[in-house]
Amino acid sequence: MKVDILRLGHRMRRDKRTTTHVGLAARALGANSMIFSGDDDPRVKRSIEDVVTNWGGDFRIEYREDWQKSISSYPGLKVHLTMYGLPVRVVIDEIRDRARAQGILVIVGGEKVPGKVYSMVEYNVSVTNQPHSEISSLAVFLDRLLEGRELEARFEGAERTIKPSAHGKELVTGNRDSS
Amino acid sequence: MKVDILRLGHRMRRDKRTTTHVGLAARALGANSMIFSGDDDPRVKRSIEDVVTNWGGDFRIEYREDWQKSISSYPGLKVHLTMYGLPVRVVIDEIRDRARAQGILVIVGGEKVPGKVYSMVEYNVSVTNQPHSEISSLAVFLDRLLEGRELEARFEGAERTIKPSAHGKELVTGNRDSS
Repeated sequence: MKVDILRLGHRMRRDKRTTTHVGLAARALGANSMIFSGDDDPRVKRSIEDVVTNWGGDFRIEYREDWQKSISSYPGLKVHLTMYGLPVRVVIDEIRDRARAQGILVIVGGEKVPGKVYSMVEYNVSVTNQPHSEISSLAVFLDRLLEGRELEARFEGAERTIKPSAHGKELVTGNRDSS
Repeated sequence: MKVDILRLGHRMRRDKRTTTHVGLAARALGANSMIFSGDDDPRVKRSIEDVVTNWGGDFRIEYREDWQKSISSYPGLKVHLTMYGLPVRVVIDEIRDRARAQGILVIVGGEKVPGKVYSMVEYNVSVTNQPHSEISSLAVFLDRLLEGRELEARFEGAERTIKPSAHGKELVTGNRDSS
């Protein structure tokens, strides 16, 4: 399934870490790319590209000023994560079916989401109707969308991989694919 | 199930938002409390307590300087979320069974987690062996631990509640429980 993320309203001064966390969570949990709008921020791009270099896969990150066009020109299903939306458990199966055929753009907000977004998407979806975090909403949404299969993904071309361990840290360096 | 969170190594200058997001995600996704260590930070406490006042429930937040004691004195199961740990899908059923009886402390790190933590817990658990975010790891872990039941939780005494909506924002103000 093709999964793209759009992160709205990035602010240079406040959101470097949260936008980076959105991007890293997106990558680790099965998305193919993240677009961000708001302020252009090379630090976010660099942080995520460094992770891709070291840890593999082909996740892409891109800044686009025109978020409206990013939504309206997207060829697949558009879903906005918001605490005001319909419960994820109610709509996720329907969304998964449609996304399989078309691909899906998952939109997450920053501090203020323009009202227009709510009507530009097929679904507004809530991961609880409580305030929490775009990072945690996205994580639960992707895990349910991809039904846990994302947890088994391999990231090709990694310079670093981890050997899961009960009580320590086991880091393997060097590109396994070329060995 | 009693679920408590310990957030290690909070840094006043860098982590205000991420620690707050950890706390809000913890609350929204079914935890009972969060302890944080590292720097004491009244802004984090205030942000989370404001959410509890407005949105209900009895989530508690507390600063404790001595994180080692917070771990060693915890009466239940201790689980540390780390990209180096055992895959969540492999260990979650076993963890859930033990946590039901004893309660569970879920430990998430900041930038640097002391090596000691890995041996002070019963489980080191990974939500993918990729770098992402303590917020997304915690979200997926709680959703799987509580098997989605946390998404149906009601928060008693809320001043604000949301009526889930397909394409708008419906906020209900005023304490429903006293009406």
